[in-house]
Amino acid sequence: MTTFITNGTVVGPTGATAADVLIDGERIAALVEPGSSVLGSDLAATADAVIDAAGKYVIPGGVDAHTHMELPFGGTSASDTFETGTRAAAWGGTTTIVDFAVQRTGERVQDGLAAWHEKANGQCAIDYAFHQIIGGVDDDSLKAMDELVAEGITSFKLFMAYPGVFYSDDGQILRAMQTAADNGSLIMMHAENGIAIDVLVAQAIARGDTDPRFHGTTRPWETEEEATHRAIMLAKIAGTPLYVVHMSAKEAVACVAAAREAGWNVFGETCPQYLYLSLEEHLSAPGFEGAKYVCSTPLRALEEGHQDELWRYLRTDDLSVVSTDHCPFCFKEQKELGLGDFSKIPNGIGGVEHRMDLIYQGVATGRISLPRWVELCATTPARMFGLYPRKGVIAPGSDADIVVYDPNATTTISAATHHMNLDYSAYEGTVVSGKVDTVLSRGTVVVRDGEYVGTKGHGRFLRRGQSQYLR
Amino acid sequence: MTTFITNGTVVGPTGATAADVLIDGERIAALVEPGSSVLGSDLAATADAVIDAAGKYVIPGGVDAHTHMELPFGGTSASDTFETGTRAAAWGGTTTIVDFAVQRTGERVQDGLAAWHEKANGQCAIDYAFHQIIGGVDDDSLKAMDELVAEGITSFKLFMAYPGVFYSDDGQILRAMQTAADNGSLIMMHAENGIAIDVLVAQAIARGDTDPRFHGTTRPWETEEEATHRAIMLAKIAGTPLYVVHMSAKEAVACVAAAREAGWNVFGETCPQYLYLSLEEHLSAPGFEGAKYVCSTPLRALEEGHQDELWRYLRTDDLSVVSTDHCPFCFKEQKELGLGDFSKIPNGIGGVEHRMDLIYQGVATGRISLPRWVELCATTPARMFGLYPRKGVIAPGSDADIVVYDPNATTTISAATHHMNLDYSAYEGTVVSGKVDTVLSRGTVVVRDGEYVGTKGHGRFLRRGQSQYLR
Amino acid sequence: MTTFITNGTVVGPTGATAADVLIDGERIAALVEPGSSVLGSDLAATADAVIDAAGKYVIPGGVDAHTHMELPFGGTSASDTFETGTRAAAWGGTTTIVDFAVQRTGERVQDGLAAWHEKANGQCAIDYAFHQIIGGVDDDSLKAMDELVAEGITSFKLFMAYPGVFYSDDGQILRAMQTAADNGSLIMMHAENGIAIDVLVAQAIARGDTDPRFHGTTRPWETEEEATHRAIMLAKIAGTPLYVVHMSAKEAVACVAAAREAGWNVFGETCPQYLYLSLEEHLSAPGFEGAKYVCSTPLRALEEGHQDELWRYLRTDDLSVVSTDHCPFCFKEQKELGLGDFSKIPNGIGGVEHRMDLIYQGVATGRISLPRWVELCATTPARMFGLYPRKGVIAPGSDADIVVYDPNATTTISAATHHMNLDYSAYEGTVVSGKVDTVLSRGTVVVRDGEYVGTKGHGRFLRRGQSQYLR
Amino acid sequence: MTTFITNGTVVGPTGATAADVLIDGERIAALVEPGSSVLGSDLAATADAVIDAAGKYVIPGGVDAHTHMELPFGGTSASDTFETGTRAAAWGGTTTIVDFAVQRTGERVQDGLAAWHEKANGQCAIDYAFHQIIGGVDDDSLKAMDELVAEGITSFKLFMAYPGVFYSDDGQILRAMQTAADNGSLIMMHAENGIAIDVLVAQAIARGDTDPRFHGTTRPWETEEEATHRAIMLAKIAGTPLYVVHMSAKEAVACVAAAREAGWNVFGETCPQYLYLSLEEHLSAPGFEGAKYVCSTPLRALEEGHQDELWRYLRTDDLSVVSTDHCPFCFKEQKELGLGDFSKIPNGIGGVEHRMDLIYQGVATGRISLPRWVELCATTPARMFGLYPRKGVIAPGSDADIVVYDPNATTTISAATHHMNLDYSAYEGTVVSGKVDTVLSRGTVVVRDGEYVGTKGHGRFLRRGQSQYLR
Repeated sequence: MTTFITNGTVVGPTGATAADVLIDGERIAALVEPGSSVLGSDLAATADAVIDAAGKYVIPGGVDAHTHMELPFGGTSASDTFETGTRAAAWGGTTTIVDFAVQRTGERVQDGLAAWHEKANGQCAIDYAFHQIIGGVDDDSLKAMDELVAEGITSFKLFMAYPGVFYSDDGQILRAMQTAADNGSLIMMHAENGIAIDVLVAQAIARGDTDPRFHGTTRPWETEEEATHRAIMLAKIAGTPLYVVHMSAKEAVACVAAAREAGWNVFGETCPQYLYLSLEEHLSAPGFEGAKYVCSTPLRALEEGHQDELWRYLRTDDLSVVSTDHCPFCFKEQKELGLGDFSKIPNGIGGVEHRMDLIYQGVATGRISLPRWVELCATTPARMFGLYPRKGVIAPGSDADIVVYDPNATTTISAATHHMNLDYSAYEGTVVSGKVDTVLSRGTVVVRDGEYVGTKGHGRFLRRGQSQYLR
Repeated sequence: MTTFITNGTVVGPTGATAADVLIDGERIAALVEPGSSVLGSDLAATADAVIDAAGKYVIPGGVDAHTHMELPFGGTSASDTFETGTRAAAWGGTTTIVDFAVQRTGERVQDGLAAWHEKANGQCAIDYAFHQIIGGVDDDSLKAMDELVAEGITSFKLFMAYPGVFYSDDGQILRAMQTAADNGSLIMMHAENGIAIDVLVAQAIARGDTDPRFHGTTRPWETEEEATHRAIMLAKIAGTPLYVVHMSAKEAVACVAAAREAGWNVFGETCPQYLYLSLEEHLSAPGFEGAKYVCSTPLRALEEGHQDELWRYLRTDDLSVVSTDHCPFCFKEQKELGLGDFSKIPNGIGGVEHRMDLIYQGVATGRISLPRWVELCATTPARMFGLYPRKGVIAPGSDADIVVYDPNATTTISAATHHMNLDYSAYEGTVVSGKVDTVLSRGTVVVRDGEYVGTKGHGRFLRRGQSQYLR
Repeated sequence: MTTFITNGTVVGPTGATAADVLIDGERIAALVEPGSSVLGSDLAATADAVIDAAGKYVIPGGVDAHTHMELPFGGTSASDTFETGTRAAAWGGTTTIVDFAVQRTGERVQDGLAAWHEKANGQCAIDYAFHQIIGGVDDDSLKAMDELVAEGITSFKLFMAYPGVFYSDDGQILRAMQTAADNGSLIMMHAENGIAIDVLVAQAIARGDTDPRFHGTTRPWETEEEATHRAIMLAKIAGTPLYVVHMSAKEAVACVAAAREAGWNVFGETCPQYLYLSLEEHLSAPGFEGAKYVCSTPLRALEEGHQDELWRYLRTDDLSVVSTDHCPFCFKEQKELGLGDFSKIPNGIGGVEHRMDLIYQGVATGRISLPRWVELCATTPARMFGLYPRKGVIAPGSDADIVVYDPNATTTISAATHHMNLDYSAYEGTVVSGKVDTVLSRGTVVVRDGEYVGTKGHGRFLRRGQSQYLR
Repeated sequence: MTTFITNGTVVGPTGATAADVLIDGERIAALVEPGSSVLGSDLAATADAVIDAAGKYVIPGGVDAHTHMELPFGGTSASDTFETGTRAAAWGGTTTIVDFAVQRTGERVQDGLAAWHEKANGQCAIDYAFHQIIGGVDDDSLKAMDELVAEGITSFKLFMAYPGVFYSDDGQILRAMQTAADNGSLIMMHAENGIAIDVLVAQAIARGDTDPRFHGTTRPWETEEEATHRAIMLAKIAGTPLYVVHMSAKEAVACVAAAREAGWNVFGETCPQYLYLSLEEHLSAPGFEGAKYVCSTPLRALEEGHQDELWRYLRTDDLSVVSTDHCPFCFKEQKELGLGDFSKIPNGIGGVEHRMDLIYQGVATGRISLPRWVELCATTPARMFGLYPRKGVIAPGSDADIVVYDPNATTTISAATHHMNLDYSAYEGTVVSGKVDTVLSRGTVVVRDGEYVGTKGHGRFLRRGQSQYLR
């Protein structure tokens, strides 16, 4: 089966060019000069299918490097399964997710990974890979890290937050980082000082400050900045690269920026919620509405000026990746677990469906360039997590994960129309420029004309190699 | 005429991929998956010519954004003509140069440009473009800037050094920057405080410090740092981007880095000489030998640690481009003009032939990655100066300016074997990893098996568009 | 004649202590523990005069290191003579001024100094010293610098602003700095890029932007930051300390702070007007009112946040001195010279009378500590300009320049009540905490109960030694 | 009893002045202008004793804010008792120490303090005060902090090092800081990441790296920098000032400098050993000799350039205090506890006797000014810890703790001649400029002509007030 995408503008991380794309089976067979007298004219005629991308962008499918499908958290589980979540991702122009397999203290790492394989296997609309959360660093789990690298799990996430759940102390972190330095894997860090935060949370609850907004005030930017800086220094001691997830505080990113300026392999990720939502407008919404916006790191105060700085850092490459930290919990019954005690609200916001659109607004408003959008949402996450050039780029031999994106259409975000299994939208009613037109996963059209036309189980597990940045 | 480059590894700014390249006439017609059952198998058979790139890198031809062919300076002229200089460039894997047309105070800008067209027309082995030096900012020359943009001259160089020759004062600089802000062109700056330097030079000569090394000591890093910072602030006032040429002082680059971190459109360029040569080892060579290494900005003191920092800045993208500032003067009769008075030595080093090899050493020694080499030497200069995607990338529709580079061969640099019209080499005897194997300019092989097989006048003038970074 | 100041709290730069002060003639004879059984009890009885300072601070008289009495500027002259100006100073608790003798291009430095001696001699209510403005750096004026050091003129001011009037180019600045490095004097710098400013001013006038507020917009903070940074680097090349006068832009002070952090001898001064007045509120006042607030460096935009930062820098010692840059021009006839063309408005604000009170507000509001007030307004200027310990400290042997300051009284600032020869007040109607109670100059009471009781000509010329900071 | 110190130069934190000092009983009664006709001539005649300080400096007695007399550590105790240690201090020109009372986990704070009172009471040659170590933060110890403030213990030390001994986790630190913010006390921090260090130490021991120098390599600068930064951020969250003890890593001081530049109340202390001794020269001495130099934070690597930077930071006031961290352990039997396992070596170096001399070398070599020496060693520690103006300054009413210091004599440091109870000297054989001539404690001469003439028990406990910097 061959498909020919013609008349479009192919956008990559360094620029845009008019080019046609010939797909043969699951992979891209060729990029062709439009109207080439040697090849171009025949290809449309001979291809099994032709997609007319006139006036549209042809971009590599999005790579969302941070999702939590079906994550157990606080007595409940994230509401999207791998089936519903990957389907929603596809709708939104994301063709690869990297989800987090979980090990908790006392569990075997391999068992956690196996459980995740079981959840995902045969369910996914698009390709998927796994990071591994190491929630209990000890000799066994460190040994398991080596094994997992061989199985294509080449990144490991540690937590400086959530004492008693995922938390690792600095000695454990150091040991895991040393292991990563040896086996060439990448350490990802949830950087918040959970020990200090727990004191602030307990004091808030004791004072009767139980509304959702106190989730934000008990996690001040200093707790993120501190942990980010600490993680960087521990990584420096261990001699290992570091990737800091879901950064929301400009001061924390400044730590990443300083490390990068020093030439260290430190990377930062942010998420759409931190670019658009705030403590004052959302987390402090009347009644229990704020619970919809409870996630960690928390939404930050507008008056502190984080959003503009995060956009700037996206431009300066101090933030290198935009992921979603997709971890949806329904307002009813799930978020409501924290009525009367914000510390019981499951942490997470669903967004896997809207990342490409939300970040495209940066292009529409002039904050970032068109190639930078592709770089942040597809190319860099693929390179960062050892998926390039299979993913993240439109090149011969790469998987034909391609999105045809219409810059002239608009998208309205709403729980009424989104495809995530979530009873609210954090961006309810927002109208954004740009619209996903057609989505191909490994050569197969999975979304067309706003319809999902893929099949459950099409998505395959991806064994990842070493991060491109580690070489 | 079609050419098929097969079995090679195509390297671009974000990574490498196995791909074949089909050239049709002057342009790249297609990038093809090797062995593709749809297209790949026939292409080698049907192409007019096949280049086997097995074990080699296939990269976009180098773009040297800073050359001075036949530049009149200090009573003599740079020793390479457009004919000899572009041929040497081709030998070294560079397929585009951007040379500097010159206006001096009292001259018409248009006349300076016309003179440069005349020098280059029909002489070049590879394609060429022009920046324009504005040596006399006034109402006429500012008006001329607008005209030149329409003619494809979209960047203008000013000098904070050389009072009485090219020097502009801060008011003139500000006015030119305002004009550039209006017409969308890019200001390039020679950033040295020439007024202060002239005092130091006069004092040195008066003291009898006339040897070549005093060229370096009378241009201390503070004079470069100061001018760089000043240029940045003037650009900020004018609201225009800024490109600082031939940076050698780490402190000056730190100014660029700070501006970039603030999100301003400021860019830095360095040259191979600053990465390898030094005040102590070269400029202070016994007798008059140091004259070979007289250029401005000057070679810096090893003990101050600039070289390692420049390499780091190449990695952090605070230095975005490596050019040569190719401006050769023969030792005999030319450099010798400064015997007994270093201030009379013509400023310049010839290097257009060795840039690709010299920077590839950064890859060979692990200082920079393979894609970064391509980015620094080809992709970014093309984007910076409005030549992308015609130049700087291997993509369908782009000019077929391609270098097949053999990472396993070595090159020995010597005046005895180089092709520049220069009676010495600044890198005499240096053996470097990597070797240019085959060079194509707009689809035509111009270098093969170490032989120049191109033709004089093949190279065409390139009308440039707006810098990609300005959008 | 002996005077005994008793029951007060003596405040110095590191703290406050209860102590009595015994004055014998012009100098302080002793500091005595109150009620000391050895000495204390008799002193009040035996002294010729007793001043009861109960509930009040006893501080060293203020040292205003930056005044311009009778300065010719823009076709007129500053409205305070040495007689009126020093009397106003005394009323405000300042007992020493350092005024600027002027040399313009083409004049002999010695003649400029002689003219200043003539203006001041026999006129002053308090002691005075001179800095020398070097407006025409050449071999003669550099030689004169050495002579003046021997005459107690140990600091020299250069201008990067006012081309054609006081302006020195970078080469002249460098040479003067080299001379200062040799003779141990201190270079003071008016740091604004006058060349760039003149372009902006001409463009504004050409556009019809002639109101006083355009004085501010044509001198953006970048022009101050740039010049400050440049001055620092030139001083670094010359190996000489640097004192930057009347700083108003936080970004410029950041340059000073960075230099100080690097351990260089760089010092910053600010003035009350920059701590209280702004572009929006004052310089943009309706009609021609803004002319009252025209000074250079200009008042800055509130929205840019300079005032808070300047207060912070006063605290962190990146700003080490508060002077007034007292340079009054009456609104009528003087400021009005610039009706219809802001560039014709004489630059300057009168403030010599209110510095001690205005900076004391920092103590009253908690921005700075009580000892810091004394340090900024008396001790540090005395040390900086070679007057310590004769001035700036309450110590045995020091001149008995003493202010009894009442923290519990208030002062209302108004043209109706002030003593400067000025027909308006930049702080009209402001009520401030604290009040000058009694002022002694070299042992003589010159202000008591709000009355001036001194005599014209009491004040003597002070030959200054080397700056304490240069040792 | 009255004493008159005459003919000397009184040095304070802002300068030197010729002044005589009249002491009446325990306090300074007056500072007098030499030869004053009112008072001066008679005073020498009428005083009970006269000290001729001609050619010498008269300075406030040193305040050593960091000593550990008789500290139990690692199964032994610091070898100086309050008797021997304070006597040695007096010999060295230090007239006040602030020692650390200890609470360990599980102990009552009040009991720890009581034990310290018992050790010191009646033993001391000079006045003394206490900080309190809080080794077990809990509700009881936090409550005790309030009590202690009322008893004149206004500073509390926490440890980020030594897990299982003194270590507090970040939550405990935060709570103690909040308490300090409420009661106006000052938190002192031993800032090293003990959790990470313990991993490195265990790995080193497991590798067989047991020599003393591995004490240094397992505490890399990153562990100090990290903890310093963390302490600053926790203090920022709590809204409390912070004093970081015994800093040795330039990168850690850079964190303090950044906080101070931001205007936060953060203070740094260093010790003579970090200014003179190094990892390569001392801690890596052959055999077990290095054990003499085991202290924490450790001596740093010369090649990393810390010493010059620390001296610079002393000049820029980013380091505000020099203390000794006097904690002597004899080489025989005490240091030897760590033969074969560096982690068993008691941590500490004795130096209380040599601080004034060692830091005076900074004056002798031009690194710091003479007033800065007094400020670092006496005035600032007194202000910092609520002892000013009773201590740290020569002023009427202050305790007559005075040192007559001879800048023209020299001192040779040696275990053979020092007075500390310590069988080696870390500075053996060093000859330094300057010599303590005469020492008075509260008006009583305790050292004269190199002889100790004081009495055991003369020294009294000092109830301290709030830090001057906190107001």
